[in-house]
Amino acid sequence: MTVPELRPQTMAEKILSQRGAQRVYAGDLAVVEVDQVMVVDSIAQSFIERMERDLAALPKYPERVSIVIDHVAPASTVSVAQAQKEAREYAARTGVRLFDVGRGICHQVLMEEGLARPGWIVLGSDSHSTTYGAVAAFGSGMGATDIALAAASGKTWLKVPESVKVTFTGDLRPGVGAKDAALEMIRELGADGATYQSIEMHAGDRFTRGERMTLANLCVEAGAKVGLVVPGGEILTGYGYEVPGWVYPDEGATYVRELTLDLSALNPRMSAPSEVDNVHDVAALRGLRVDQVFIGTCTNGRIEDLHAAAEVLRGQRVAAGTRLLVIPASSEVMEQAMADGTLLTLQRAGAVLGTPGCGPCMGRHQGVLAPGEVCVSTSNRNFIGRMGDKDAQIYLASPAVAAATAVLGHIGLPQDVQRDVA
Amino acid sequence: MTVPELRPQTMAEKILSQRGAQRVYAGDLAVVEVDQVMVVDSIAQSFIERMERDLAALPKYPERVSIVIDHVAPASTVSVAQAQKEAREYAARTGVRLFDVGRGICHQVLMEEGLARPGWIVLGSDSHSTTYGAVAAFGSGMGATDIALAAASGKTWLKVPESVKVTFTGDLRPGVGAKDAALEMIRELGADGATYQSIEMHAGDRFTRGERMTLANLCVEAGAKVGLVVPGGEILTGYGYEVPGWVYPDEGATYVRELTLDLSALNPRMSAPSEVDNVHDVAALRGLRVDQVFIGTCTNGRIEDLHAAAEVLRGQRVAAGTRLLVIPASSEVMEQAMADGTLLTLQRAGAVLGTPGCGPCMGRHQGVLAPGEVCVSTSNRNFIGRMGDKDAQIYLASPAVAAATAVLGHIGLPQDVQRDVA
Repeated sequence: MTVPELRPQTMAEKILSQRGAQRVYAGDLAVVEVDQVMVVDSIAQSFIERMERDLAALPKYPERVSIVIDHVAPASTVSVAQAQKEAREYAARTGVRLFDVGRGICHQVLMEEGLARPGWIVLGSDSHSTTYGAVAAFGSGMGATDIALAAASGKTWLKVPESVKVTFTGDLRPGVGAKDAALEMIRELGADGATYQSIEMHAGDRFTRGERMTLANLCVEAGAKVGLVVPGGEILTGYGYEVPGWVYPDEGATYVRELTLDLSALNPRMSAPSEVDNVHDVAALRGLRVDQVFIGTCTNGRIEDLHAAAEVLRGQRVAAGTRLLVIPASSEVMEQAMADGTLLTLQRAGAVLGTPGCGPCMGRHQGVLAPGEVCVSTSNRNFIGRMGDKDAQIYLASPAVAAATAVLGHIGLPQDVQRDVA
Repeated sequence: MTVPELRPQTMAEKILSQRGAQRVYAGDLAVVEVDQVMVVDSIAQSFIERMERDLAALPKYPERVSIVIDHVAPASTVSVAQAQKEAREYAARTGVRLFDVGRGICHQVLMEEGLARPGWIVLGSDSHSTTYGAVAAFGSGMGATDIALAAASGKTWLKVPESVKVTFTGDLRPGVGAKDAALEMIRELGADGATYQSIEMHAGDRFTRGERMTLANLCVEAGAKVGLVVPGGEILTGYGYEVPGWVYPDEGATYVRELTLDLSALNPRMSAPSEVDNVHDVAALRGLRVDQVFIGTCTNGRIEDLHAAAEVLRGQRVAAGTRLLVIPASSEVMEQAMADGTLLTLQRAGAVLGTPGCGPCMGRHQGVLAPGEVCVSTSNRNFIGRMGDKDAQIYLASPAVAAATAVLGHIGLPQDVQRDVA
C-alpha cells in the first residue's frame, strides 16, 4: 500500500491547515485557531457591545486580545474620549492588553511587541491587518462581529483563499524602494485584481522587516484577504523570529495567477487620485503644486522611512506655502528617531511633528484637507474624501518622494532638490 | 512762571500716554497707536469678514498684523481646514504675517519673533494676550471687531485702566516657581479682583522672560485688562530688548490696591476645579487619582518648563492608567528640547508628544477629557467643560508638580517621587 501523494500547498493553505489541524486547499472552509485579535479604538465600542451584550462572553484567551488607541489619538471630541475610556475600562476588567494614546499605530505596535509571528493567524479590526504578512503571519481585517466571535471563542472560520504568486527579481535602483515596488504591484494587479485572494510574495532575502510591512500592508489595496511575504534567507531569524519549517509554500502549489516584477526596471512611483492602482512615474506628475505633505502611517512611518526623509531634508527647508507633517508610527520609532538625531534634522527643515498614531491618514482628527487642497502622502489610500474634503486630492508616494515634494513645494524627485555646493 | 508739576503715572498710564501722544490717567479715554495686532486661527474668519465685508479695508500696516494657526493645529475637521486655508490666502493677498501649523502658540511665537517689545501696544484676539506684559508691552485681548478696527486704522481706543501694584519680595524655595507665584497672586486678587485693571508687577530682577510670561499670562484670570511686569535690572536688556526710560512707573503713582507677596513663604500651589482662584497647597490635594496630565500652553510650555518636567521624569515612568501629554509651546522650544536631550528624557519616561500649539488647553481638538476624568494641567483655565466634558475635573499646577503627578498617577509633589538609590 503506497501513501497517496499530498497535493502541494500555498503559504496561505499551509498556515490555515496548520492552525486548523486539517489539511485544506483554496475554496475549503477552515476553522482555525486565532493567535492574536487586534481591536482599534474606533471599533472598540462595537466590539465591547458584541462581547458583553450580544455574546455575553469574556475573551477566551485575554492574552490573545490587544486594543490599540491609534485612530484618533489623542481624543478629539468628548464622544471619542468616552469611547477610549470605555476601552481602558474593558481592558482593565478583562485582562486584555491595551496600548494607549501615543504608543502608536496598531500594526506597528503589534509587530514591535512580538504579537505577530511566522505561522500565526492575526485578525484585526482594521483593513490593513494584511501587514502581519510581513513576518509570514496570516493577517487579515474583519468587522467588529467577526472580531468579537474570534475573541470569545479563540477561533475563526473562513474560506481558504486562492493565491496569486508575485515574484520580485533584480535589485532596486538607488532612490527606489519598497513603496514603489508595492505601488507597482497594485497597479499590475488592479484595485480589485486579487479580491479575497492571498498575495504570496517571493522576494528572496530582499527587503527588511519594515519594507516587508509596506509590501504586505498594500496588498489589501488589490482586494486581497492576506498578503504573505515568504521568509527569505536570514531576514526574519535576524529579527529574532523562529520560522517554522512548515510555513514555506510547496514547490508546485496552485496559483490562480503568477506575476514577476523586475525591481531593477522600477522608477519612483506615485498613485494619483483617486484610486491606489492609478500609478504613474513621479517624473510624469512633476511640478504639481502641493499644500500638504504627510510622512507617516502603518505603510511608511517607520525608522527607515524617517531616515529616507531626513536624507532628503537635511540642510533644506520646507517650501513656503507647503506644510510637512511627520508622524512616527510608534513611540519606539519616535524614541529611536529622537536618539539618532533624525527628528532634529526634520524639525530644522521645518517639519511639523505629531503624536504617534494614524494621524491624517483617514481624515478623522488632524491634518484634515480643505476643498481644493493637494496632499502627497506616504499612506495607503487616496480615495475621494479619505483625508478630508471630497474636493481634496491625494497622491501616494514613498517617504523620499514626499520629502522632496515638501522642499520643492510641488511634486518632484529627491534629485530635483537643489543641493548647495560645499 | 513755574512749570506745573505733573501727576505721577503708573506703567499702563505711561505706555498709553506715550503711544497716544497725550498724557492720560486712569479713567481717561485714550486713542493709541497699535504696534502689533495678533489674530488666531479660530477668529480668523470673523476677522477677515470684518475687514473685507464690513470695513472694506486693507490692513493699514500689514507688517503690524500677524495671523497664527495654533488653536486647532493641525486642522481637525474640513471646516477648520477651510478656515485655515482662507487665513493663508488672506495673508498672501494682504502681506500680513502668517505663522502656520506647528510654529506654535500665538503669544510664544510673537515673543520669539520680537513682535512684542517694551513700551509697545499689542492687541490679540486671544484673552491671554496679557502675556506680552512680560516684556513691558501693553498686551490685551479683544474681539474680532476691535481687532479688525485696529488692523484697518493702526489705532485703537480704550479707557485707561486703574492699576493694582503687586510687589514680590523674598526668594522662591527650591521646587517652587513662577506658576506657583502666579496662582497665589490670582488667589489673593480673586477671579474678578482686578476687572479691567492693570496688574503692575514689581519683581526686581527676579524671573526670566519665560517666567514673566507665566505671571503676565495669568493676570487675565483676575479679570485684568493688562498685566505688566516692570523691567528689573538687566533682565530684558539681557534678552536684547531696548527698554525705553519712559516706560517705568513713576514714584508716587496712584494704585487702587497694593499687594505684597513674600515668595519665600510660598509652597507649590494648585487651582482646584472649577475656578482659577480656587488655589490650595498641592500637599492638601495629594493622592487624588489622575487620568491625564498635560504639560504645555502659553502659560507653561517653554523650555524652562520642559526642563523642570524632565528633571522630575528622568529615569522614571508615567504611572499605568495615567496619560502624560507634552506639547512644546513653539517649534523653537521643540527644537531646543530635541537638541538638548530634554524630549528624549520625556519620551523615555512615557510622555506623549504633540504638535506645538494650544493642544488640549481649550478642548477643541485633542486630549479631550471624558466624563468623570481628572486632569492636572499646566495651563491657565480650569472652568467647567474647558477641556472636554462638563463632568471632567481640571487642576492647574506647575510643570514640576504635573510631572510628579504623572509618575505617581495621583496628585503629588516632586519629592513624593521615589528615587532609586544609586
